[in-house]
Amino acid sequence: MTTFILDARLEADTVPVVDLALSTVRLMDDAAYPWLVLVPRRAGLVELIDLAPAERAQLIEEIAAAETALARATRCHKLNVGALGNLVAQLHVHVVARFDTDAAWPGPVWGAAPRTPYGEERRAALVADIAGRLRAS
Amino acid sequence: MTTFILDARLEADTVPVVDLALSTVRLMDDAAYPWLVLVPRRAGLVELIDLAPAERAQLIEEIAAAETALARATRCHKLNVGALGNLVAQLHVHVVARFDTDAAWPGPVWGAAPRTPYGEERRAALVADIAGRLRAS
Repeated sequence: MTTFILDARLEADTVPVVDLALSTVRLMDDAAYPWLVLVPRRAGLVELIDLAPAERAQLIEEIAAAETALARATRCHKLNVGALGNLVAQLHVHVVARFDTDAAWPGPVWGAAPRTPYGEERRAALVADIAGRLRAS
Repeated sequence: MTTFILDARLEADTVPVVDLALSTVRLMDDAAYPWLVLVPRRAGLVELIDLAPAERAQLIEEIAAAETALARATRCHKLNVGALGNLVAQLHVHVVARFDTDAAWPGPVWGAAPRTPYGEERRAALVADIAGRLRAS
């Protein structure tokens, strides 16, 4: 059994928020959209169907918890969820807060524009807010 | 309790494949990508968090079944899953077979190009193939 190691590109693009039972939750360092990435901590996963059914049930509950935390923290207009993996193979799920005024609306956020990193203070505040909500969920 | 009615735009863009326990499965009429859309048959849903936990567990298993059927029918390189709803509010989940040679690779399919409808014969064959696999799953 190999150990889970977070993909290097995911690690570079995101900062840690909190670990849930299955997934590590990260914040995409992109001030254009409040954007979480959930990565199940199992080595070798690529597709949702690589998870066992019980793990998939856990994952969708963690997605729901991430959606709830993000919606409450941001008062967004819409939530977008996606598992693509065309560039980074390691299974990861995007949960994105969308506003009808954001840069990519109504299109998808993936591939829309280069990341515009948060300032450190703003990023830390958002991470603390979402982590607190997820720990309480 | 209101009755579930499929959104008019989803109905216009897709053709029926099969009904699962929770979702009606449709094929996007776009020859550029083998593309299923799962729509939970409950009125008034917009977000995944509008579903009860047991319904979410059912939905993720139906997504997994759709992925397996689509992967076996198409021998695709990657599966993409997304729930966006920025244009059509009714909760629906995209399950898309991706090839590293397809028109949008490695970007997302949403908003990439106008639909290019299948011919009737090819569409009917794909629907029959996927429906058979989903009924057997």
